[in-house]
Amino acid sequence: MLRIGVLGCGRIGQVHARSLMRLDGVKLVAVADAFASSAEALAAKTGAEVRDTAAILASADIDAVILCTPTDTHYDLIHAAARAGKAIFCEKPVDMSADRIRDCIKVVEDHNVPFLTAFNRRFDPNFANVQARIRAGEIGEVEIVTILSRDPAPPPVSYIKSSGGIFRDMMIHDFDMARFLLGEEPVQVFAVGAALVDPTIGEAGDVDTAAVTLTTASGKICTISNSRRASYGYDQRIEVHGSKGMLRAENILENSVEVATDAGFRRAPAQNFFLERYESAYLSEMASFVKAVASGVSPAPSITDGLRAQLIADAATLSLAEGRPIRL
Amino acid sequence: MLRIGVLGCGRIGQVHARSLMRLDGVKLVAVADAFASSAEALAAKTGAEVRDTAAILASADIDAVILCTPTDTHYDLIHAAARAGKAIFCEKPVDMSADRIRDCIKVVEDHNVPFLTAFNRRFDPNFANVQARIRAGEIGEVEIVTILSRDPAPPPVSYIKSSGGIFRDMMIHDFDMARFLLGEEPVQVFAVGAALVDPTIGEAGDVDTAAVTLTTASGKICTISNSRRASYGYDQRIEVHGSKGMLRAENILENSVEVATDAGFRRAPAQNFFLERYESAYLSEMASFVKAVASGVSPAPSITDGLRAQLIADAATLSLAEGRPIRL
Amino acid sequence: MLRIGVLGCGRIGQVHARSLMRLDGVKLVAVADAFASSAEALAAKTGAEVRDTAAILASADIDAVILCTPTDTHYDLIHAAARAGKAIFCEKPVDMSADRIRDCIKVVEDHNVPFLTAFNRRFDPNFANVQARIRAGEIGEVEIVTILSRDPAPPPVSYIKSSGGIFRDMMIHDFDMARFLLGEEPVQVFAVGAALVDPTIGEAGDVDTAAVTLTTASGKICTISNSRRASYGYDQRIEVHGSKGMLRAENILENSVEVATDAGFRRAPAQNFFLERYESAYLSEMASFVKAVASGVSPAPSITDGLRAQLIADAATLSLAEGRPIRL
Amino acid sequence: MLRIGVLGCGRIGQVHARSLMRLDGVKLVAVADAFASSAEALAAKTGAEVRDTAAILASADIDAVILCTPTDTHYDLIHAAARAGKAIFCEKPVDMSADRIRDCIKVVEDHNVPFLTAFNRRFDPNFANVQARIRAGEIGEVEIVTILSRDPAPPPVSYIKSSGGIFRDMMIHDFDMARFLLGEEPVQVFAVGAALVDPTIGEAGDVDTAAVTLTTASGKICTISNSRRASYGYDQRIEVHGSKGMLRAENILENSVEVATDAGFRRAPAQNFFLERYESAYLSEMASFVKAVASGVSPAPSITDGLRAQLIADAATLSLAEGRPIRL
Repeated sequence: MLRIGVLGCGRIGQVHARSLMRLDGVKLVAVADAFASSAEALAAKTGAEVRDTAAILASADIDAVILCTPTDTHYDLIHAAARAGKAIFCEKPVDMSADRIRDCIKVVEDHNVPFLTAFNRRFDPNFANVQARIRAGEIGEVEIVTILSRDPAPPPVSYIKSSGGIFRDMMIHDFDMARFLLGEEPVQVFAVGAALVDPTIGEAGDVDTAAVTLTTASGKICTISNSRRASYGYDQRIEVHGSKGMLRAENILENSVEVATDAGFRRAPAQNFFLERYESAYLSEMASFVKAVASGVSPAPSITDGLRAQLIADAATLSLAEGRPIRL
Repeated sequence: MLRIGVLGCGRIGQVHARSLMRLDGVKLVAVADAFASSAEALAAKTGAEVRDTAAILASADIDAVILCTPTDTHYDLIHAAARAGKAIFCEKPVDMSADRIRDCIKVVEDHNVPFLTAFNRRFDPNFANVQARIRAGEIGEVEIVTILSRDPAPPPVSYIKSSGGIFRDMMIHDFDMARFLLGEEPVQVFAVGAALVDPTIGEAGDVDTAAVTLTTASGKICTISNSRRASYGYDQRIEVHGSKGMLRAENILENSVEVATDAGFRRAPAQNFFLERYESAYLSEMASFVKAVASGVSPAPSITDGLRAQLIADAATLSLAEGRPIRL
Repeated sequence: MLRIGVLGCGRIGQVHARSLMRLDGVKLVAVADAFASSAEALAAKTGAEVRDTAAILASADIDAVILCTPTDTHYDLIHAAARAGKAIFCEKPVDMSADRIRDCIKVVEDHNVPFLTAFNRRFDPNFANVQARIRAGEIGEVEIVTILSRDPAPPPVSYIKSSGGIFRDMMIHDFDMARFLLGEEPVQVFAVGAALVDPTIGEAGDVDTAAVTLTTASGKICTISNSRRASYGYDQRIEVHGSKGMLRAENILENSVEVATDAGFRRAPAQNFFLERYESAYLSEMASFVKAVASGVSPAPSITDGLRAQLIADAATLSLAEGRPIRL
Repeated sequence: MLRIGVLGCGRIGQVHARSLMRLDGVKLVAVADAFASSAEALAAKTGAEVRDTAAILASADIDAVILCTPTDTHYDLIHAAARAGKAIFCEKPVDMSADRIRDCIKVVEDHNVPFLTAFNRRFDPNFANVQARIRAGEIGEVEIVTILSRDPAPPPVSYIKSSGGIFRDMMIHDFDMARFLLGEEPVQVFAVGAALVDPTIGEAGDVDTAAVTLTTASGKICTISNSRRASYGYDQRIEVHGSKGMLRAENILENSVEVATDAGFRRAPAQNFFLERYESAYLSEMASFVKAVASGVSPAPSITDGLRAQLIADAATLSLAEGRPIRL
């Protein structure tokens, strides 16, 4: 039985607590949050105790922690948890600074604690299926990866300002997916972008519409495009062209109903809310963490995967600023 | 070079003339119509001569005739053409009376002339593909055939009155398709129906919405449903459930474009007009006739196929009238 | 807080217990099963107590019972629970005998207890969406309902023998769906069928492939076809043709991935297992029961809905035996 | 009646001759080819005369010429035809050199002759539908255009060597499509590419797998990816993301049939051969030329459109060579 403490009881902390309730071989022992009322509410729902963060890190009856606190707290918590010998499940991004992630890698390696960087999309059953079939050779050698990702609506500009920019906040998921599907590290990044959705995003120094081209040493290509707005739901598609064929994962629609009228054949919009769209991914992600820790294998994606995605995001940010391709 | 005369220059006569222009190994020599202006217009478009019907039947430079005249003229024309030794391509239905079709079969057999009953849907590339794959064993033994067929809009009641009723006028195509796909003769017919689209169709003694269940000696089942109205175009679908799998042919839409908005994902309506929907079927049908005659094999569907479909339509009409299943 | 006792801890009892764990405003208090080990296993998983059936029915801390015991026990349990004033959620069928269901209706009405007949498919989000849009007038008047339903594989013949036959065991779900979608009672039933999948099913006096045509007083038509086998998964489709358009719910596939090779474009099979296919329907069904009981409205589908579906199944059985349409 | 001469009777010349036979208001008067047998074969099929090129250009009974000769002959023929006052339909590319295209523009403008650059894909009914709906505002402002284009198989290396490279030979169609859909000129081009399909293409100095990012002054983005190989047919897809929604045109499959087995649901491959895939586009293109010339409006795409696409192809070629974005 793996005994868990959840640090941070906001929206994503609640998602992970709910996943823990549905899994066998694991027990949610305690929760903590800077706001006592948040911790208490989650405790009431789950039967967990409320403890403070330090207590959880010091608890002998806690084997692993789930970090769902703000990004700028990850660094200290990772250090403390590693030193306490806890397995760590850390929400993305590990940190906004690649150097600080390198520090975290060091402490995690020094204390040899299991660590999972929570790139949830790898656990989406559809995307995972695509990747598994690539690895099984079903479409031969990967040649072109195409990732189309659009959010239903932009976040408030106040959020944008502290987000690190679209490449670190939104496209970072796609960078991890690109690495997952390419099976080879990107060596060059080229980014373009503009504020087409909301001019105040441009005034805040960010873009809301962007495209990136990644290339690998052997010549594989990945193109990614993002928009902060899609009228038709949360648009999440991947497509991989290989030497023997093509694999693609289409959007998940709200239902399977089609209506036919003189306007044509109409199906429902795509699922709109990321927690609904990735509900099974979040469950699978947690199951994967629990299973890896319980069986003594390293969880994936690793903290190094977290670093690599961050380095691509940094390079894309620089590419957009300087208008040139950046070598990794 | 097969030399052809077209009898009847209305809409379907023009379709067949156009097909003849696109085929190799065949020459449209002459056209005839009760209305001189119709014949002249088609002659001008195709370079064929205008002759009268008797002249075409007597012409030494005509090998085959395409019968596109009203149904009640088929009987005499088939007799005359058979006696003149012409190959015959006859629009469906061969005749409204099964007994008179039997007479036609006799004269066609006595004079041993090639004869094709123009059930065009067998030549639709999609339906033909389904049938070929059934015959190749791709889904094992056929068990359930489902045919959904809806016209875009009902014809005028004046047409309905002389049509012979929905089973002889509209569903007869589906009866032929059922035989084509089942690969075994139906032995029982059960029909239901009502005038739901237009009460004046009911007043004229017909129905506009109907369903028929056919069964074969070995227990295979075919369900057919028809409506005289579909807001979304000319709806023509077949599905065959077999012991090893299922084959289905979906509608042909007006184009391949999909739009996504907050209302969902919308594709175009189905092609609306039967001449557009079955354009390639008409071409293929004529090519099949020309090739069969030129190479001395019997064209299909045969005149007996025409009889069999008519007998099922007659049985369905009786079943609806008497409210009981009819043995064939 | 609605307090619940589950009677019967087999597969479907476990499904409902799991649903109860995920719902707010409800508490699973106790479980019972003829096999103590089954009850204990479910109690361990859910934190409920093990009590015997009589104790649950007598418990003051139980407001409602979920009947998941064998069909032949329903009659007595419904009587006892009604007399004890418990709300009743009863797995389908209520009973194999229409007369006995009428007795149950009487006791439920006499004691005025809430009762839900568990036709789970009404709660499938896709089918529920179709029905809601019909009621909202999106496709005008309903004219033709088409239901295609195929199980992945036939049950053992031993099960078939005590199942009451395909119409009472399998197609009964489709009869309820037909009533749900037609919005009008069927007045006539015509059935055909054969044992095409497995001859031993025929030897047991049942069929494994069947089609039924229902008609209503106003002339609406419903065609249903069933097979006990589908290589491509659990095939569950409905389509409703109305005066203004058509609504259909397609199958739920195992995932959203498509592969393209020289063999074409291939998607996954349909979800194969009914508990997976209808997982969200089961949850929704229980939520609907809990909400209805808590708010004092009558749950639906009612016990009378259970009777009506059974009467159609009886009529279909008779129709197949006698080869004629049966009036309801 | 527009009177036409076709120069060049190879594969594409034959396509255009066939289109002319199917159109009203136009007459194919004469054909020419460097190989007498090619000209004679086409003349026999169409009823046109064989004349030599000079004779066609000098003929008083020829109003327009269709240039289907090798690219390096276009320059002289355009000059001669313009001076002879003939309307010109010119296969793409107009010329491999932008400067020489500018010379052609001058002579065409000086003699004020109608000129159509044959970018056939603009006339595909699906792509034309997408563009028309963009212009009608159906998806608001265009923000991201995605073009996925893959040939079924690479041409022989001998062809590659004289092709001008993938950007001028293959992606030039996509550059024209990008301009057609963006509604705004690209101002920057960035290209990546590699020889992944066939190393001998790399040895010949070209790539067979490539991606290009175009950006416009207002920040619109277009990403294009090409491969010289696709096992599943001729893959031709476009997608346009706008402020109000998304429009996409999917591949045209060989038929509408789907088979379901334990391997899942499988549809046919995409139409494989470009002449079949774009058959209706070629017909529409010629109809558009004939109509424009007959009614005195300028045909589109114009010769300037031909130049613009060539300039983008040149810039993409330079971008790949130098590894940097190129301003247009």
